[in-house]
Amino acid sequence: MTRKSVKDYIRTIVDFPHEGIMFRDVTTLFADPRGFRMTIDQMLHPFAGEEIDKVVGLEARGFIIGGAIAHQLTLGFVPIRKKGKLPGATLSQAYQLEYGEAVMEIHDDAIQPGERVLVVDDLLATGGTAAAGIRLIERLGGEIVGCSFIIDLPELGGRKVLEDMGMDVHVLCEFDGA
Amino acid sequence: MTRKSVKDYIRTIVDFPHEGIMFRDVTTLFADPRGFRMTIDQMLHPFAGEEIDKVVGLEARGFIIGGAIAHQLTLGFVPIRKKGKLPGATLSQAYQLEYGEAVMEIHDDAIQPGERVLVVDDLLATGGTAAAGIRLIERLGGEIVGCSFIIDLPELGGRKVLEDMGMDVHVLCEFDGA
Repeated sequence: MTRKSVKDYIRTIVDFPHEGIMFRDVTTLFADPRGFRMTIDQMLHPFAGEEIDKVVGLEARGFIIGGAIAHQLTLGFVPIRKKGKLPGATLSQAYQLEYGEAVMEIHDDAIQPGERVLVVDDLLATGGTAAAGIRLIERLGGEIVGCSFIIDLPELGGRKVLEDMGMDVHVLCEFDGA
Repeated sequence: MTRKSVKDYIRTIVDFPHEGIMFRDVTTLFADPRGFRMTIDQMLHPFAGEEIDKVVGLEARGFIIGGAIAHQLTLGFVPIRKKGKLPGATLSQAYQLEYGEAVMEIHDDAIQPGERVLVVDDLLATGGTAAAGIRLIERLGGEIVGCSFIIDLPELGGRKVLEDMGMDVHVLCEFDGA
């Protein structure tokens, strides 16, 4: 009997959020008890034995993963959110989108200098969001242990962007196309 | 030595998101390893030994909690999101806000008839969002085991709204005022 891999549980939705996009939908992975358990466990395996102080998740699907990983490791969880969502004093970091730009924010007291941080999200595409998150953590003096994603879209080059920033990048599976 | 309770880790931000609101900020609770651990464990305690099939979290802070709880129990996680965020076919449920209305959505295949569901979020205020989430789960044939929140604002009456729907409601702490 061959059991499904993490990738097998991911569903593709054509033309979401707009025409021409093959959206890789992890909700079918998360909804399955075995799929979700394997996802969280496998995202952590490369970092077993590492000293980690905090887990950072990127809004919004990174919250689902980050909450699970922080609880698994009995660590604190820190959200990086889209502009205007965090109630306290924040640092902001803009990044380029295909058209225009977007801004990510972190609470300015969420990471202490020298704290060792694991960054998690579901999808590595162009790497823009993750790179902005990494900059925010580094501006607060955090040291990034690594970045763990479920999916990489290699054609969009995000992995190279993060590796060029000195990051240790871990992904569970790849999909062709954007 | 007296250790901090869950409530002690929650910070209040005055006038967010607009004047007159005392915003109860759980990010300081989640960022602390002991605070986050106690939160997830205490949210689960009333439901220990219950038969549960899936955990549903409400966007966006409910994702952090729901991911942790689903992983703890080795269950699937299902998100209920604001309109337009879920890529697949959805059910929608509108609910009243102070001014106007909002819409929550669930994937129409995310819950199977008869599945037993635990609903989690950070804050119970008027109960509007949670009630919309409960309706969506019930429309898919799910049975709700209970609803677990970190904070209740009793003056806003959300607990009564959910209990009048037949819900078993569990909260970790209360704050006065809206």
